[in-house]
Amino acid sequence: MNNCEIISIGDELLIGQVVNTNASWIARQLGLLGVNIFRTITVGDDENDICAALAESFNRSNIVIVTGGLGPTKDDITKLCACKFFDCSLVFNDMVFDAVKKRFATMNYPLDENNRNQAMVPSKCTALVNHNGTAPGMLFKEVGSDKIKMMVFLPGVPYEMEGLMTDYVIEEIKLTFGLSGVYYRTVMTQGMGESLVEARIKEFEDNLPPNVKLAFLPQPGSVKLRLTAYGDDINANKTIVEDEMNKLTSLIPDIIYGFDDETLEQAVGRILRENNLTISTAESCTGGYIAHLITSVPGSSDYYKGSIVSYSNEVKKNLLGVSNDILLTEGAVSKSTVEQMALGVRKRLGTDIAISISGIAGPAGGTDDKPVGTTWIAVATPSGIVSRKFTFGYSRTTNIKRAALTALKMTFDIAGGVC
Amino acid sequence: MNNCEIISIGDELLIGQVVNTNASWIARQLGLLGVNIFRTITVGDDENDICAALAESFNRSNIVIVTGGLGPTKDDITKLCACKFFDCSLVFNDMVFDAVKKRFATMNYPLDENNRNQAMVPSKCTALVNHNGTAPGMLFKEVGSDKIKMMVFLPGVPYEMEGLMTDYVIEEIKLTFGLSGVYYRTVMTQGMGESLVEARIKEFEDNLPPNVKLAFLPQPGSVKLRLTAYGDDINANKTIVEDEMNKLTSLIPDIIYGFDDETLEQAVGRILRENNLTISTAESCTGGYIAHLITSVPGSSDYYKGSIVSYSNEVKKNLLGVSNDILLTEGAVSKSTVEQMALGVRKRLGTDIAISISGIAGPAGGTDDKPVGTTWIAVATPSGIVSRKFTFGYSRTTNIKRAALTALKMTFDIAGGVC
Repeated sequence: MNNCEIISIGDELLIGQVVNTNASWIARQLGLLGVNIFRTITVGDDENDICAALAESFNRSNIVIVTGGLGPTKDDITKLCACKFFDCSLVFNDMVFDAVKKRFATMNYPLDENNRNQAMVPSKCTALVNHNGTAPGMLFKEVGSDKIKMMVFLPGVPYEMEGLMTDYVIEEIKLTFGLSGVYYRTVMTQGMGESLVEARIKEFEDNLPPNVKLAFLPQPGSVKLRLTAYGDDINANKTIVEDEMNKLTSLIPDIIYGFDDETLEQAVGRILRENNLTISTAESCTGGYIAHLITSVPGSSDYYKGSIVSYSNEVKKNLLGVSNDILLTEGAVSKSTVEQMALGVRKRLGTDIAISISGIAGPAGGTDDKPVGTTWIAVATPSGIVSRKFTFGYSRTTNIKRAALTALKMTFDIAGGVC
Repeated sequence: MNNCEIISIGDELLIGQVVNTNASWIARQLGLLGVNIFRTITVGDDENDICAALAESFNRSNIVIVTGGLGPTKDDITKLCACKFFDCSLVFNDMVFDAVKKRFATMNYPLDENNRNQAMVPSKCTALVNHNGTAPGMLFKEVGSDKIKMMVFLPGVPYEMEGLMTDYVIEEIKLTFGLSGVYYRTVMTQGMGESLVEARIKEFEDNLPPNVKLAFLPQPGSVKLRLTAYGDDINANKTIVEDEMNKLTSLIPDIIYGFDDETLEQAVGRILRENNLTISTAESCTGGYIAHLITSVPGSSDYYKGSIVSYSNEVKKNLLGVSNDILLTEGAVSKSTVEQMALGVRKRLGTDIAISISGIAGPAGGTDDKPVGTTWIAVATPSGIVSRKFTFGYSRTTNIKRAALTALKMTFDIAGGVC
């Protein structure tokens, strides 16, 4: 078994000013290869503390990934610690310097002594050129009689670390530790809690081949399912995962919207584009959050025309054409209101599809009849209108998120049936 | 010096499925008291790994906070490890059981054996009743000849952990380690980068009393500044912090919007409420994100009427009354367009104030004349209209956030001057 430890260096992480997302990102990537994450550690910018952590982790585990403290300023002392730990000194690396020079030339920045120092690397390491910054990665290998050990140092800036992991480190770990055969696929679902999904696919899960694992990855409002096949033969693993994925998707077609980390707002954009459809939104309780999700996708202006956020009843009446009678008799959170909202915005903005939503996000505003979390969603299309009632929870933030994702999934299904 | 280590237990943290926000939250709270955070560690749900981490940390540091693994299921083994480490056995605790019983009665849930087991705690600990869940906290103290050591076990669910920290642990650490005198205040700013703020208040910072520290806490689009006075005398420290805070606020009045972790959307709501003003928004590049921020504040329907998200030019013309000429000659990202958008939404929604925004969020859509990041913001009031041009950066996500915060700060300033 290959054990890995992740050491994160930096006072800003240790004192909690920055949440450590690097450690979880690295753990997820290595977990996909079947590497066992044994421990993660955060230490401050202190030479003794860093060196102590390096020694402990490299003694316990055979893969150690270290991030942070590689910048050009004086509190960045990781390189020093690496030299001390591997008993070597810094040498000038032409390949790294050329990359730094090229980077500065492109940006029209002058090169100073600090930048030149980025090309000094420990003599015993393999330097990894950083395509997103100036600090190179540094990879050390120790080949013992019974096993190989590897320690890698990476910058703490997330996109620089991620770039170096993707460009070199993951491949190097696969090759060094014989993990090149691992293959996985992810399917994205919305609309059913983790335990219900699990109950529905229990028989499938119990009958998986011994080298295939199923992982449930719940997120607020959605659940990802990942199938991973372990073993040496990448082609066999690919076939087995695709076969099992076909079985899995046939069991839960109603809740699937995409594969391989596609977001729901991306999936909605994809289906609208494929079917050449435009869309608009009318939001009450979600207060613009659906519009925000849709427009967070680059290029969404191709299919998204806009939203009327009707937080007050006056806006529902004056801009969306909801009738005063309906608001008085059935209320703002009702089937008739959301249907009039959807029809209203579809007409006003001249789109093929319109989503509308009205609910009680909380914490106040609930009644016995319509408790906090009660939400109506409608989707209007050229061929008619579909509306549904949902009861979410008690938290305002969660209700807004769940309502928005539920509305997007309804839209995905309806637009996917080409309205 | 009091050194603290934080141990987070849980496979879901170790494999990166959940980002560890508990460790950073605890580090921030203890940092406020002047406790030095020495190391944070994450281990999985394994008895040997947990016990090894407890021993290492308690040997190195005199305060150890452990979270996670206290639930009623079989993979929750932290309580077992605590007994092993402190060499004691589990005993039934009536106070904890009463609290669990009361909790279940309120929720109308039946009590089972697993829930009863929550009342079993190590005999050597002080049990801390959890007001947000069933798993109690457990506090151990060892009084040695030269120093006191403390280890605290808390549940991993963030709001349960935070409740127990706030209800008992922070106070207990203050009393045990003589830290009751620490006093701090935070001031919230927007509109100026960290280094510019630092340059402007350098003289102030250099002349702070020796027991007062200034911390810069940058977040995307805003900077928090915190003044902390250390020492035994809480009243003296309070006076000194308030005095220095007065000096600090007089140096940067233009960028301050609030104190003590108030968000900008909360501050805008406060100022609108104080001045009995209503507001609406017309958003293009931010695509509903300003509406989302404003409506994320409970009770915002008192002052917020709604938004027209005009992602397409047709919506700008048809719903907001932007003239075709202006769109053709000056373009959608221009002073005239945002001014017509603000006036249009203010009139259509009948509010005192209206915010409008139009820009190029990216990654595509930039020109030499108007590069990605170019953004116009206008705020219309009963007494006129103010519009300003900004140039943000290259990242779509960051541009949307910075544009929204900048628009809210403009609104805060204008509404605060009572329009």
